[in-house]
Amino acid sequence: MNNLENIVSLCKRRGFIFPGSDVYGGMAGTWDFGPLGVMLKRNIMNEWWKYFVDSRDNMYGIDAAILMNPRTWVASGHTATFADPLVECKECKSRFRADKIANGISESVTTEEFLATHTKCPVCGKENWGPIRKFNMMFKTHVGAVDDDTSVAYLRPETAQGIFTNYKNVIDTIYPNLPFGLAQQGKAFRNEISPRDFILRDRECGQMEIEYFIAPNAWEENFEKLLSDNHYFLEEIMGLPKEKLHDYEVPEQDRAHYSKRTVDLMFDYPNGEEELMGLAYRTDFDLQNIARESGKSMEYRDKVTNETFVPHVIEPSIGVERLFLAVLSSAYTEEDTDGDKRIVLKLPENLAPYKFCVSPLLKNKPELVAKAKEVYDQLRAKYTFVTWDDSGNIGKRYRKQDEIGTPKCIVIDFDTLEDDTVTVRDRDTTEQIRVSIAEL
Amino acid sequence: MNNLENIVSLCKRRGFIFPGSDVYGGMAGTWDFGPLGVMLKRNIMNEWWKYFVDSRDNMYGIDAAILMNPRTWVASGHTATFADPLVECKECKSRFRADKIANGISESVTTEEFLATHTKCPVCGKENWGPIRKFNMMFKTHVGAVDDDTSVAYLRPETAQGIFTNYKNVIDTIYPNLPFGLAQQGKAFRNEISPRDFILRDRECGQMEIEYFIAPNAWEENFEKLLSDNHYFLEEIMGLPKEKLHDYEVPEQDRAHYSKRTVDLMFDYPNGEEELMGLAYRTDFDLQNIARESGKSMEYRDKVTNETFVPHVIEPSIGVERLFLAVLSSAYTEEDTDGDKRIVLKLPENLAPYKFCVSPLLKNKPELVAKAKEVYDQLRAKYTFVTWDDSGNIGKRYRKQDEIGTPKCIVIDFDTLEDDTVTVRDRDTTEQIRVSIAEL
Repeated sequence: MNNLENIVSLCKRRGFIFPGSDVYGGMAGTWDFGPLGVMLKRNIMNEWWKYFVDSRDNMYGIDAAILMNPRTWVASGHTATFADPLVECKECKSRFRADKIANGISESVTTEEFLATHTKCPVCGKENWGPIRKFNMMFKTHVGAVDDDTSVAYLRPETAQGIFTNYKNVIDTIYPNLPFGLAQQGKAFRNEISPRDFILRDRECGQMEIEYFIAPNAWEENFEKLLSDNHYFLEEIMGLPKEKLHDYEVPEQDRAHYSKRTVDLMFDYPNGEEELMGLAYRTDFDLQNIARESGKSMEYRDKVTNETFVPHVIEPSIGVERLFLAVLSSAYTEEDTDGDKRIVLKLPENLAPYKFCVSPLLKNKPELVAKAKEVYDQLRAKYTFVTWDDSGNIGKRYRKQDEIGTPKCIVIDFDTLEDDTVTVRDRDTTEQIRVSIAEL
Repeated sequence: MNNLENIVSLCKRRGFIFPGSDVYGGMAGTWDFGPLGVMLKRNIMNEWWKYFVDSRDNMYGIDAAILMNPRTWVASGHTATFADPLVECKECKSRFRADKIANGISESVTTEEFLATHTKCPVCGKENWGPIRKFNMMFKTHVGAVDDDTSVAYLRPETAQGIFTNYKNVIDTIYPNLPFGLAQQGKAFRNEISPRDFILRDRECGQMEIEYFIAPNAWEENFEKLLSDNHYFLEEIMGLPKEKLHDYEVPEQDRAHYSKRTVDLMFDYPNGEEELMGLAYRTDFDLQNIARESGKSMEYRDKVTNETFVPHVIEPSIGVERLFLAVLSSAYTEEDTDGDKRIVLKLPENLAPYKFCVSPLLKNKPELVAKAKEVYDQLRAKYTFVTWDDSGNIGKRYRKQDEIGTPKCIVIDFDTLEDDTVTVRDRDTTEQIRVSIAEL
């Protein structure tokens, strides 16, 4: 079954993802990528950068620091509103997110509304609650040698502000014409009260964001274009099945007050539909906030018309781990073969950690091993991402390569020594064909 | 002059590096990479990964979380010893690193030794000091909804422990044979009391580290091999001049007690010689610490001899920003041309953000612009990293491309329309040759 437990288990078993700080009993809400996970994650992140940045004439990179001047979060509103409703049980002192332990209430629940739900404490079973208080989800630290209010800083809760705060620097140095985009890949942090759902709701996550700066009257066409580009990326480059992706047009009452349109791209994860990415028309909200807080002009001067105005912004934002899990859960397949379970990661070729696996049929035959090494070296020089496997028997090797998503297994046997042909076994069909080494 | 101020100025002027949170008056010790800086940094980091990981059969990636279980830092010794000597002026309450304001004392200075130097306060000029206290340089935060000692966590002060804590996970999932290496690129944080020297001593920095696991008796040969591989990488791939790199054999009294050999690779930075990277033989110190703290065995079983032992480790560790600045300051050149100053970034081609710049000689001649676009599109399809420039006059464009390190400028003029040849101008020599479009 394509359920989350099976995927978590595969991730740990094959070296994709381990629980963070596992050796010390863990660190809730953090995850470490192992050798195979790093390969897949790098492929995902590099494909995104290639498609959205390198191949476009009007996209530029930004890589801002994680620690930012705290005025950033005053201007963006995070200091005031990036908060969860926290409630404490007066009996056992356990703390919870009110909206997660009571049914049918929202993040903006009041104490009265919460008490009216007559929720019992999940730990001690009593019903004796303190008031709801807003718990800010930014991780706080102190910078420099003095530990007081003047030295407070936060781990950025989103990468977007690292882009907005550099908008003026970019305008003043590379003079781009509208529309242009600034893209960033980097870490963001949220002090989730209850991290859960594997890498879907973690405390530390990778973000890939673009702030796309446009003339205000051009927002609709650019929104449509970015929406269709993102669908192309997710379906054609990441290989996500169309039928698992759903555009959710966020209704007016649920949108941020400044946004005229927001589309959440939802994905059918093993545990249900969840947001994979968001596309939001943010108007000039962020740049105006920065102008107000910093006292600096965020105006753009059109080189042709000489008109000046503050650009509007469309923001496509996607979480690396959310995309990673979407890719992994789309690829994860269990098949019954002769009553036996075959687990296969049907990853698109461009994302698969290894493109080929080369094996000698028997590892105790030096002539086979030598020939296989020769083939391995040839392929390795050409495709880089080639792995070698001479462990166990050939059936076990296939199973292992299936689980890590290697599209083709190449086996060198005694016939190879005669006629320079090899067996090429396909991951998805398990079909084996005979091919000459020269054709590989 | 190749001095730091000129490089900082170029970085800001051309969009390589901006001060962090610049729009809000900054955030000491943080830096943001702009469009050109991101391109150069990505090239540097990708070349490292390609050379040390992708092209080797026994190197694997790790990408661990920044927030780790705090026992990590007890085991590694950071909780106890990752500290600077902090001293406070009792008159004006200013705080300083004692070893930075007094001459001839070390990081382990005592209060008595410091007072004996009769240093005056750099702020108020008085000499009335409190005692030296050890200031731990790890950034502290709290994880979860409770703000007490049980929820303390630190931003990792080094990436290495993210690798060591995953050693066992890797051993148990991909069963590598010794020697093998685990490589990681990621951020590390140090709460420097006085960040300085541009990106050399920042509070947030990129690290590229390998922990290379070996049989204890093989340390010397592996150390030599890694040392020469790192020289190859720095000189041949990063293009750093041999004469600016110096191996410093750290003498026994300055080495960590467990290390039998440490070599610091020093580089002649604009402000003087500084450590660019370190290569340290760490024995089994880290794995033994983890075994002790976690109670778990860190033993490796040799598949042939069945012998079990805790592997030893050699660690090459390099800072992304330190390498970035070494590359930039090696490339930075000022030349006198006809009494005028020409600034050129003589970056190796593999690192240059753009490989070609395509320009029409005149921007108000549509036939030149159309032809230039055609050439641009051809090159862009083939080389990706091609830029377009039709601003100002041709001389200004050359100056700009020189400053961002573009190796070749291609200019389309009226002759191009006749005979399909273009002018190719070389960044380093400023020589111009005539080449047919087909030859490009």
